[in-house]
Amino acid sequence: MHKKRKIINDPVYGFITVGDPLELEIIAHPYFQRLRRISQMGFAHLVYPGSVHSRFHHSLGAYHLMSNALNELKTKGIEITTAEELGAKIAILLHDIGHGPFSHTLESELIKGISHETISLQLMELLNKKFDGQLKIAIDIFKNQYHKKFLSQLVSGQLDMDRMDYLTRDSFFTGVSEGVIGYDRILKMLTVHNGELMVEEKGIYSIEKFLVARRLMYWQVYLHKTVLGAEMMLIKIVQRARELAAKGEQVFAASPALDFFLKHSQITKEIETNLSLFCNMDDYDVLCSIKNWMTHSDKILSLLCQMLVNRNLLKVKLQVQPFDNSLLATKRKKIATQLAITEEEANYFLITGHATNTTYNPIDERIHILFKDESVKDISEVDNALIQQQLVSAVKKHYICFLKTD
Amino acid sequence: MHKKRKIINDPVYGFITVGDPLELEIIAHPYFQRLRRISQMGFAHLVYPGSVHSRFHHSLGAYHLMSNALNELKTKGIEITTAEELGAKIAILLHDIGHGPFSHTLESELIKGISHETISLQLMELLNKKFDGQLKIAIDIFKNQYHKKFLSQLVSGQLDMDRMDYLTRDSFFTGVSEGVIGYDRILKMLTVHNGELMVEEKGIYSIEKFLVARRLMYWQVYLHKTVLGAEMMLIKIVQRARELAAKGEQVFAASPALDFFLKHSQITKEIETNLSLFCNMDDYDVLCSIKNWMTHSDKILSLLCQMLVNRNLLKVKLQVQPFDNSLLATKRKKIATQLAITEEEANYFLITGHATNTTYNPIDERIHILFKDESVKDISEVDNALIQQQLVSAVKKHYICFLKTD
Amino acid sequence: MHKKRKIINDPVYGFITVGDPLELEIIAHPYFQRLRRISQMGFAHLVYPGSVHSRFHHSLGAYHLMSNALNELKTKGIEITTAEELGAKIAILLHDIGHGPFSHTLESELIKGISHETISLQLMELLNKKFDGQLKIAIDIFKNQYHKKFLSQLVSGQLDMDRMDYLTRDSFFTGVSEGVIGYDRILKMLTVHNGELMVEEKGIYSIEKFLVARRLMYWQVYLHKTVLGAEMMLIKIVQRARELAAKGEQVFAASPALDFFLKHSQITKEIETNLSLFCNMDDYDVLCSIKNWMTHSDKILSLLCQMLVNRNLLKVKLQVQPFDNSLLATKRKKIATQLAITEEEANYFLITGHATNTTYNPIDERIHILFKDESVKDISEVDNALIQQQLVSAVKKHYICFLKTD
Amino acid sequence: MHKKRKIINDPVYGFITVGDPLELEIIAHPYFQRLRRISQMGFAHLVYPGSVHSRFHHSLGAYHLMSNALNELKTKGIEITTAEELGAKIAILLHDIGHGPFSHTLESELIKGISHETISLQLMELLNKKFDGQLKIAIDIFKNQYHKKFLSQLVSGQLDMDRMDYLTRDSFFTGVSEGVIGYDRILKMLTVHNGELMVEEKGIYSIEKFLVARRLMYWQVYLHKTVLGAEMMLIKIVQRARELAAKGEQVFAASPALDFFLKHSQITKEIETNLSLFCNMDDYDVLCSIKNWMTHSDKILSLLCQMLVNRNLLKVKLQVQPFDNSLLATKRKKIATQLAITEEEANYFLITGHATNTTYNPIDERIHILFKDESVKDISEVDNALIQQQLVSAVKKHYICFLKTD
Repeated sequence: MHKKRKIINDPVYGFITVGDPLELEIIAHPYFQRLRRISQMGFAHLVYPGSVHSRFHHSLGAYHLMSNALNELKTKGIEITTAEELGAKIAILLHDIGHGPFSHTLESELIKGISHETISLQLMELLNKKFDGQLKIAIDIFKNQYHKKFLSQLVSGQLDMDRMDYLTRDSFFTGVSEGVIGYDRILKMLTVHNGELMVEEKGIYSIEKFLVARRLMYWQVYLHKTVLGAEMMLIKIVQRARELAAKGEQVFAASPALDFFLKHSQITKEIETNLSLFCNMDDYDVLCSIKNWMTHSDKILSLLCQMLVNRNLLKVKLQVQPFDNSLLATKRKKIATQLAITEEEANYFLITGHATNTTYNPIDERIHILFKDESVKDISEVDNALIQQQLVSAVKKHYICFLKTD
Repeated sequence: MHKKRKIINDPVYGFITVGDPLELEIIAHPYFQRLRRISQMGFAHLVYPGSVHSRFHHSLGAYHLMSNALNELKTKGIEITTAEELGAKIAILLHDIGHGPFSHTLESELIKGISHETISLQLMELLNKKFDGQLKIAIDIFKNQYHKKFLSQLVSGQLDMDRMDYLTRDSFFTGVSEGVIGYDRILKMLTVHNGELMVEEKGIYSIEKFLVARRLMYWQVYLHKTVLGAEMMLIKIVQRARELAAKGEQVFAASPALDFFLKHSQITKEIETNLSLFCNMDDYDVLCSIKNWMTHSDKILSLLCQMLVNRNLLKVKLQVQPFDNSLLATKRKKIATQLAITEEEANYFLITGHATNTTYNPIDERIHILFKDESVKDISEVDNALIQQQLVSAVKKHYICFLKTD
Repeated sequence: MHKKRKIINDPVYGFITVGDPLELEIIAHPYFQRLRRISQMGFAHLVYPGSVHSRFHHSLGAYHLMSNALNELKTKGIEITTAEELGAKIAILLHDIGHGPFSHTLESELIKGISHETISLQLMELLNKKFDGQLKIAIDIFKNQYHKKFLSQLVSGQLDMDRMDYLTRDSFFTGVSEGVIGYDRILKMLTVHNGELMVEEKGIYSIEKFLVARRLMYWQVYLHKTVLGAEMMLIKIVQRARELAAKGEQVFAASPALDFFLKHSQITKEIETNLSLFCNMDDYDVLCSIKNWMTHSDKILSLLCQMLVNRNLLKVKLQVQPFDNSLLATKRKKIATQLAITEEEANYFLITGHATNTTYNPIDERIHILFKDESVKDISEVDNALIQQQLVSAVKKHYICFLKTD
Repeated sequence: MHKKRKIINDPVYGFITVGDPLELEIIAHPYFQRLRRISQMGFAHLVYPGSVHSRFHHSLGAYHLMSNALNELKTKGIEITTAEELGAKIAILLHDIGHGPFSHTLESELIKGISHETISLQLMELLNKKFDGQLKIAIDIFKNQYHKKFLSQLVSGQLDMDRMDYLTRDSFFTGVSEGVIGYDRILKMLTVHNGELMVEEKGIYSIEKFLVARRLMYWQVYLHKTVLGAEMMLIKIVQRARELAAKGEQVFAASPALDFFLKHSQITKEIETNLSLFCNMDDYDVLCSIKNWMTHSDKILSLLCQMLVNRNLLKVKLQVQPFDNSLLATKRKKIATQLAITEEEANYFLITGHATNTTYNPIDERIHILFKDESVKDISEVDNALIQQQLVSAVKKHYICFLKTD
C-alpha cells in the first residue's frame, strides 16, 4: 500500500500535499486547529473584505513553500537528510502556534512581556514531549541552534518561508495585486553557500521586487489608516476593561480563558502553567466579549465597543513629523467635553504613536547574492542596486487616532 | 466637485465601486456590517481552508454583478430608470440581511418556522422607515411585486446575481477551479423579452456550463461529507443545549442575544419585536458558546462541542439507497455502550437524513433562450441540449453521520 | 555536481522543468524547434486574438502534465520504471511532431492520404536512429504496443495529456474561462487498475466537467463560424493554387518546400524520402505565399488571398438541417454573376459541409471509474450520470460558407 | 435599436468592448489587421514560449485601458468631450501602426533614418483622408499638439496606456509574474491638474511598483541574453543579404515588398510614396526569407540563417565594463579560422554594443504627484522616495555576442 497523504485545496498554490504521519498528527492537534480561529490579518478586512484568511491557512502555506524550497535545494545538490527535512517543515508549520487572539495587535497587551515566539517555543516543547521527542530537530532549527544555519534561515530570516507566504497570501486575499511577489522564482534562485542561504545572481531583480512589494504592503495594507485605527481601538478596549476590573467593577469576558488573562495581566512567570488555558483563547473570545460590552454600563467601554463592532472608527492621520502638542491638547479637551469625561479618559479616544518600517534592514540579517565566480555581495551592494542606503534606514511615520468632534 | 464614491478591493472582481450615497449609508449601517461576522460557507473551511469569506463580501459581490448586468441591459436598449437601478442594487445588497449565525445550517433550528428571506424583508421594511421610504422599489423588487419582472429575476431566479456571485466567489475562495463559471460572459448574454429575463442564443453553452458547475459545487463542496458532518454536529449542539435548558439545567450562551433565542425557540410571532436582538447575533456568539460548553458538565454537550471545535468530527457516508434500519440499530447500541448513555441519547451521535439537488429545476423557474428569430425555448429543449430530462429530476442522496466506535 | 536542467516560464503552469539530457536534446532538435512556427489554433486568433500560441508550447505543456501524472501514479504505488517514464514523456513530447503548416486544416489537403500521426511516427523512427535507439519505448508507447497499456492511454485516449493540455492552454490563451478544466485535480484522481488508466470515484464530477468544457470549446471556439470560414478559405486557396499549377499557369509558393508539396500532391508513397523537406515547412511558408498571391493574375486566387489576409471573410451559417439545394444554386449563380466567373468556379466562394462532435464517444475509448469496492463503471453508467445516451451520440451541424453578394 | 458594438475576448482584461463605428472601421482596415502579423516581442518567445502575442492585441489592449482611463477621469469631473474621447482612443489604437517587421529590432535597419512613429503619423494622415478628416483630433493628440496636454500624455508619456498595456500583457504572456503592475489601481489614481496628467498622493506606492516592474522586465525579459543574441543575428542577416545584393549576388527575399526594401535601403525620402508597399511587409516575409536563405550559397548568410531558425544562437555576455579589445581580437581570429572567412567577415559572428535603461528618466517627462493640499511633487522627491538619484541616471551594460569556437 502507498503512504496515506492529505491533499488540501488552496486557492493560492492549487494544492498543498501533506505526506508525513507526524505532520498530519500535528495538524490534527487542537493547538494547531486553534489557528483556524485566529485571523491572519486582524482588522484588515475592514478595508479589504477578502482578507479574512486564518493563521491556520498561512501556516499550511508556509509549510508548502518549505517543502518546495527544500526540494529545490536538494536538486542543486545541497545535502538535507530526511530528518532535517521533516524538522524544517515542522518548524515552519509551528512558527505561529504561539499567537494569541488578534496576533500582533494584542501581543504586547494581553500577556505582557512575552512574545509569541516564546510561547510558540513552549508549545513546541510541549508537543515534543507528547510526540516522544520527534520535534527535537524542529525545535533546534526554530531556535537557530541547528548546525545547518540555512535551515533556520528558511524559517526565520530575510527570505524565510513565513514572509514568502504571508506576502503572497495577503496580497491574494486582499486583492492588492501589487503585493504579488515571484515566490516560485525566488525559491528556484535560492542556494546554500558556506552553510548560509543565498540567492543566485540571476535572482537579483526578483529579490528587489520582493522588497519593494513588502514595502508597498506595509504602508498600503498593514498600516492602512483604517486598519491602524481599529487596532488601536482594540487595544484601548482591553485596557479599559482591565482598568475597570482593577477598580473592582464588573467586567466579564465572554469566555473563562479570556476572563482569566484579562484579570491576570502580569502572568509572565506562570505562562508555562497556563499554556492550555492560553490555547483556549482565540479571536472569538475577544470579539464576543466586545459585542457583549457594547451595552456595558461604563460609557467609555461601551462606546469603544460599539464603534469598533459597527465600524464607526476613530479618524487617523499619518505624517512624517510628530504631531503638535497643542493640537493634541485642543483635541483632547474637545473630546472630553463632548463625551463628558475627564481629559485623562479622553485619551481612550485620542491615541498617538509612530510606526517604522525598513525596506531592507541589514541589521536583522543580510540578503546575500552568490555570483557565478563564487563571490558574495549584499543585495544593497550589487551593481546598480535598487536597494540603497536610504532604503536601508527606517522610515518612521507618526500617527494620531482621534474621535471626530462636532 | 465630483460625487463621492467608494472603491473596494475585491480579489474576485478587482474593484467594486459603490457610488450612490444611499447605498453607502446602507452598507455603513450596523445591520449590514453584521454580515462581516457571518461566514458565507459555514464549516466548509474545515475542508477548504480558504473559504472563510463573509456574507458581507458576497453581498457586495452580488451588488457589483447587478451593476454590471443592469449596464449591459441598458446598452441593449432595455429601459431601466435610475430609481429602478438603485432599487435592484439595494435589493441584491440586502438579499441576505436576514441570515442568522451559520446561515442555512441553523436557519430552521435557531428560530423555528421563519425563513431568512422573511427576516430579510422585515429588516428591509425597517430600513425603509429609517431612510424615509427610499427602499420602496427595492422591496417591491425583492417581493417579486414590481411590474418589471426581470428586475426581480435578477435578484432571485435561475440566473440571479446571488447565484452568479456565490458560485464565482465560493469556487475562488475554496480553490475549486472547476466551479468557475463564465459570469462575465453570461452577463453579456442576458436580455429581456416580454418583460422576462432571457439568454441570447449564443449563451447556451455558457448556461450549460453554469448549471454543471453548480451541480459540481453542490456535491463536491457544499455537501462534502466533512462539511455535512460538522453542520449536523452544530445542529445537535443547539438541540442539546436547548434540551438541557428546558430540563432546567444551567446552560448559558456566551451572549445575551443568543441566550435569549436558545431559550425562546418558539419566537415566530414575536420576531418583529425582537429584530434588533436578532441582529446582535452572529457566528461569534455561537462559536464562543460552543467553546465554553467544551467543559460543560453534560457529557453529551461537552463531547459534541469538543469534537466540533477540535475538528474531530463524526464519520459520514453518502449513498443513493436509504440506510438499513438494523445497521442503524447496531451502530446506535454500540455508541450508547461506548459513551454510557441511553440509546435515545445516542442519536446525538448518529444522524441520518437525505440531501437532494436538481441540476436544473424548471419548477422553480425556467431558463429561457431567446433565438435570433425571436422564438423562445427552454434550456432543456434546445437542439442537442446537455440539460435533459434526467437532470431536471432531483438527485437524492441519503447520509449517515455517526461516531466511530472502537 | 547536480544534473543540468532547464526551467521554462509558462503562463499556464508557472514553470516547466525539463531534466533529462535526452529530452533536452530532442527539444533542441530542428524538427522540434519547427513546432514554434506552427500555430496551435490556426485561425482562431481572428476571433480570439490571444490564441497565437504554438504547437511547441503545447507539446511542452503536455510533457509537463505527463511528468506530473506519472509522479501521481508512482505515489499511488503504480510501478513505472525510469525508462518507461522517459518513454512516456518523450512520446507526448513528440506526439505532434508530424503536424504540417496549419495543422488539421491542411492535414488532408497538403499531403493527401497521410495523417499527421503517421508522419509523427516516421519522424520518431528517424530520431530514434539518430539517438541510438533511445526512443524505442517511446515509439512502442506511441504505437499503443507497449505492454503497460495505461502509458499509451496517457499519450492518446479519452483522458490523455494532449487533451488536458490543449483544453487548458486554449482556454487560457483565448480567454474563454468557461473552457477551464480542473487538470490538476483530474491528474490526482487518475489511477491504474487491471493495467488500464481509470479515474477514482471522487473524480466523477471533475470528469463530467472536463467533458462539458470540451463540448463548449468545440462549438464555441474550435468551430466558431469565423474560424471555420477562414479555414475553408485556406483550403480553397491551396486547391486553387494547385489547379492553376496543374493547368500550367505560373504559381510559385514563397518557399521551395511548399512549392514542392503544392506541385506533388500525391506524395503519399514517397513521404519517407521527403521528410526533411516536409520539416522545412511551417505556417510562415503558407502565409507568405498567400500574401504574395494577393496580386496573382488569377482573380479567384488573388481575391481569396486578399480576403483571408485582410480578414474580410466568407459569411458562415451553421444549422442542424442540411442546406437546401435550391438556396445553394441561387447563391452560386449570384456569386458567379457578381465575380464574372463560371458557376463551377463560384464553388470557391460557396462551400458546404458538416461538422460532428461527440461529447463522450465511448467507441473511441471508454472512461472507466474505479469505485472503492474495486468495481468499475463507465462514466455514462454511474448513478445520476450527467453523460447520458444523448451525449454519447454525435452532434452533427451543417455549415455553409459563402461570399455575400450585393 | 441599440448601437452595434464588438466584444473581444482578452485573456488579460476579460473582454474588450469596441463601440464606435469609426473605431470598428479602423480596426477592420488592412493596415490595422497587418498588426496581427507583427509580433509584440520579437524573439522573446525563444526564451518565454508564451510571448507570441501580436501588436494587434497590444493595440487593442492599450485602447481598452484608454477607455477606462478616460472614464475614470470623467468621473472625477475632468472635462473630456465625446470627440476628444474618440480622438484619444484612436490615437492609442494607431500608435504602433507604423511598426515594420520585427518592430524595434529592424526599425533602424530595414528603413534607415525613419522612426516607426514617423511612419505611424504618415499612415494616420492617410487614414484621415480616407475617413474624411475624422482623425484630426487623434493626430493632434498623437503629435502632442492638442491643447489638452493630458490627452497626449495618456498616449505617450511616463504613464501612458502603451506602457501600462505592454508591461501587463508582456508579463502575462511570458509568465513573468514579477512584471505585474497594478494597472487598474494606477488608472484609478490618475488625475489632471493644470492641464497635466498627475497621480493622486495615495498612488505613490503603485507608481514605484510600476517603475520597478519595468526595470525588472527590461533586464530580465526584453534584454535577456538569448533574446538579445537572436535580435543581433537578425540584424546581421539583413546586413549580409544587403551586402550580397550590393555586390550583385542573387539574394531574393520571399516577398516582393521585402525584396524592394532590402534593395533600397536609402528609401527615406520616398517612404511616403511607398507606404502601401511598406504595409505589405510583416514578420512572415522576413522569417520566410530567412528560412529560404538557410540554403543560400553564401556560407555566412546561410549559417546565420540556420542558426537563427534552429535556435542555435550566438553566445551572449553582459557586463558593466566595456569588453577588452584584445579579447575581441582573439575571438575574431578564432572565428575567422574556424569558419574559413576573413576577420572582417568574422564580425558577422562577433557583435558588441551596449544597452541602457533608466528606471525613471525625468528628462523624458516627469511623474507628478498631486497632494491633497494641491501641492505637486516629482515622484523622486516625495518623502522616503524609492526612486532616487541613482535610479534616475541610466544603467549601461555592455554586451558581446559571439560564435563559440571549439
